[in-house]
Amino acid sequence: MNSTAHQVIKCRVEVPAVAWEAGKPLVIEEVEVAPPQAMEVRVKILFTSLCHTDVYFWEAKGQTPVFPRILGHEAAGIVESVGEGVTDLQPGDHVLPVFTGECKECDHCKSEESNMCRLKELLQLRCSLSPANSPSRNICSRFSINGKPIYHFLGTSTFSEYTVVHVGCLAKINPLAPLETVCVLSCGISTGFGATVNVAKPKKGSTDSVFGLGAVGLAAAEGARVSGASRIIGVDLDRFEQAKKFGVTEFVNPKDYDRPVQEVIAEMTGGGVGRSVECTGNINAMISAFEWLGCVGVLVGVPYMDDVFKTSPVNFLCERTLKGTEVFTKKRGVCFYGCLMVQELELEKFVTHEVPFSEINKAFDLMFRGEGLRCLVRMEH
Amino acid sequence: MNSTAHQVIKCRVEVPAVAWEAGKPLVIEEVEVAPPQAMEVRVKILFTSLCHTDVYFWEAKGQTPVFPRILGHEAAGIVESVGEGVTDLQPGDHVLPVFTGECKECDHCKSEESNMCRLKELLQLRCSLSPANSPSRNICSRFSINGKPIYHFLGTSTFSEYTVVHVGCLAKINPLAPLETVCVLSCGISTGFGATVNVAKPKKGSTDSVFGLGAVGLAAAEGARVSGASRIIGVDLDRFEQAKKFGVTEFVNPKDYDRPVQEVIAEMTGGGVGRSVECTGNINAMISAFEWLGCVGVLVGVPYMDDVFKTSPVNFLCERTLKGTEVFTKKRGVCFYGCLMVQELELEKFVTHEVPFSEINKAFDLMFRGEGLRCLVRMEH
Ligand SMILES: NC(=O)c1ccc[n+]([C@@H]2O[C@H](COP(=O)([O-])OP(=O)(O)OC[C@H]3O[C@@H](n4cnc5c(N)ncnc54)[C@H](O)[C@@H]3O)[C@@H](O)[C@H]2O)c1
Ligand SMILES: NC(=O)c1ccc[n+]([C@@H]2O[C@H](COP(=O)([O-])OP(=O)(O)OC[C@H]3O[C@@H](n4cnc5c(N)ncnc54)[C@H](O)[C@@H]3O)[C@@H](O)[C@H]2O)c1
Ligand SMILES: [Zn+2]
Ligand SMILES: [Zn+2]
Ligand SMILES: [Zn+2]
Ligand SMILES: [Zn+2]
Repeated sequence: MNSTAHQVIKCRVEVPAVAWEAGKPLVIEEVEVAPPQAMEVRVKILFTSLCHTDVYFWEAKGQTPVFPRILGHEAAGIVESVGEGVTDLQPGDHVLPVFTGECKECDHCKSEESNMCRLKELLQLRCSLSPANSPSRNICSRFSINGKPIYHFLGTSTFSEYTVVHVGCLAKINPLAPLETVCVLSCGISTGFGATVNVAKPKKGSTDSVFGLGAVGLAAAEGARVSGASRIIGVDLDRFEQAKKFGVTEFVNPKDYDRPVQEVIAEMTGGGVGRSVECTGNINAMISAFEWLGCVGVLVGVPYMDDVFKTSPVNFLCERTLKGTEVFTKKRGVCFYGCLMVQELELEKFVTHEVPFSEINKAFDLMFRGEGLRCLVRMEH
Repeated sequence: MNSTAHQVIKCRVEVPAVAWEAGKPLVIEEVEVAPPQAMEVRVKILFTSLCHTDVYFWEAKGQTPVFPRILGHEAAGIVESVGEGVTDLQPGDHVLPVFTGECKECDHCKSEESNMCRLKELLQLRCSLSPANSPSRNICSRFSINGKPIYHFLGTSTFSEYTVVHVGCLAKINPLAPLETVCVLSCGISTGFGATVNVAKPKKGSTDSVFGLGAVGLAAAEGARVSGASRIIGVDLDRFEQAKKFGVTEFVNPKDYDRPVQEVIAEMTGGGVGRSVECTGNINAMISAFEWLGCVGVLVGVPYMDDVFKTSPVNFLCERTLKGTEVFTKKRGVCFYGCLMVQELELEKFVTHEVPFSEINKAFDLMFRGEGLRCLVRMEH
């Protein structure tokens, strides 16, 4: 056991500040991280990177704001100590947090079809850590500042030097894998790659489209390339230069046309594409990605709370299928261990920037400007 | 060859009358049925039955009305003569019309995934028979009354003693199969059964739901039963007595509750159902069938033109899948020949009424009153 085991750890963390509100720059604070309770694990975070989903909850537009809160969910770290009942992991293990957990006991985990472990439901709904019924949402938090509890985020909260995560939301990885590279597998790259390879499943020689060419969309394009698609049409308002390195063969900028993008693609392809994967989070792109485009659409982007997906039911009758996906987990055979995926993917290409933890707000700026892809945040223990 | 081959046949037909308008009772008229042209087949209809889709196009609510028109698409008959190039069928063959055709040559037919042969698109869009480009939609019709062309319907138009159909929209059946029974396989029963067995694919021991307990919905329930579902929840405003004979194990009447039906089902099942198949044609039922209900939803009902399917995209992100389906065709291995399906299904149970052709309007009345399931119409040659 570590010398810190069973002790409260004081460490630096990013919380939305000054008044801990939505949309305000993050500031470094000192936080107390309680020891892990039953089935929990305390993790020392070495790297974390910014995913658009963090921005979405930080902006908290159209949501019930949940602040103060420790954001961050794409990361890589090392187990510091484990709580009662944890047998799969031990101090020193290298791990990636995965917000779609796997408790191995709920109906979803037992079903071969679903990835939607109830753990996530409980953790997310409460925005706190423990799945136990608690009278106050705050009571379950393992984070506090001057005695005041701080909300967790997606069960992971990786914008902190240490965090406490349910064992079901951690994937153990090969200690030889470089943490600064595999970090991006923790959410964005696995989600995008999995959205094509595991969910959309393009055919060999097919023409497919990807809406949104951020890291998630480009990982989806890579998934299509690896699956053998021969034409991959990328749709974005930007980022075309970058996308050329990632399997995208043609580009459409909706701003270049005065007619709907689905018509443009139908013309380019003589009828439409096979698979269409949406990685923008924009409701109009979601609707376009499905409308007229091939037989399978997959939604990945996180929409705003009040967004409504609208389509004519006749689009379904024509045998189109619409699915959604979240980061794919262990159950679907995620190859966090596997060099296979790492080699195929050249993960390094997705990490275009790096900042020290103290400059995390730069990562937000880069994402707002659509500059680069993933910005790696290096913790400074 | 038959003595009637190459001749125009005069026969009785049902066309919307008096002014051949939407929603008016059908009247018997004498129609001229031209000989089949290249790749076409002229069929002597022996039995036809009324499907809700006929009623939908007869009412023509929110549609561009296409009249005068010969409705009907669920039928059984015998080949009278064949046009040039037809090699699969010959006079005397027993056939079922299938509106989702299979030309075997288009991109959809060649793709292993799609059932949406372009033939149907062409035939349906023009509401006439020939897939050739024609300056006027009427010119392609094989039906006329006093020289005035009459529109076809779904490429089949079976409310006529004789009809002309593209060879790709006919399935040859075993001559030993009783036509008055297999008639209902031509559309409704294959669609419903196929919607569960081929599209929704319920798991053994699962709990599933069917919205709409007409012939299509009850065939879907039978499909769930045959697939090994153990609880099948039927949702309808009516028809509960009948449904007990068809694998439905529990009933929900939305009128009995002052909260949304999806909440009622979530309570009954402790979280939701595995598969949810909608066979109502009602947009609200379509939305309910998908909302909160299990991982796969399948839409079968034909909506009104202006209906909009609305849902939160978050419902997809939770890994739900929504599909639609049309009558399943030869490509999917439809067992029109197979006694297998006929035995499993006890097709007779779906035919609750029978009328002679001259009383076809009674079939419409029965459907409006929700009385019985399929009404068989016996042609009187
Ligand atoms: N389902 C999941 O588990 C999951 C996991 C990770 C990320 N996400 C979501 O996936 C989306 C992409 O994430 P990211 O980190 O790659 O974000 P990103 O901001 O780096 O990339 C998004 C891209 O979409 C483009 N875009 C925005 N609106 C568009 C429109 N109307 N048409 C075309 N392009 C448009 C932007 O220009 C940008 O390049 C976000 O919504 C994120 O929240 C979901
Ligand atoms: N996709 C296809 O290829 C295909 C093929 C055949 C039929 N259909 C369509 O399938 C549907 C069913 O056809 P059918 O011939 O069995 O019709 P039907 O009229 O015999 O049965 C429909 C049933 O739905 C019920 N219903 C209507 N609104 C409802 C609501 N809001 N909630 C619950 N139940 C409701 C009615 O009470 C009725 O029992 C129709 O829309 C028809 O057009 C589609
Ligand atoms: Zn679970
Ligand atoms: Zn993410
Ligand atoms: Zn075809
Ligand atoms: Zn029908």
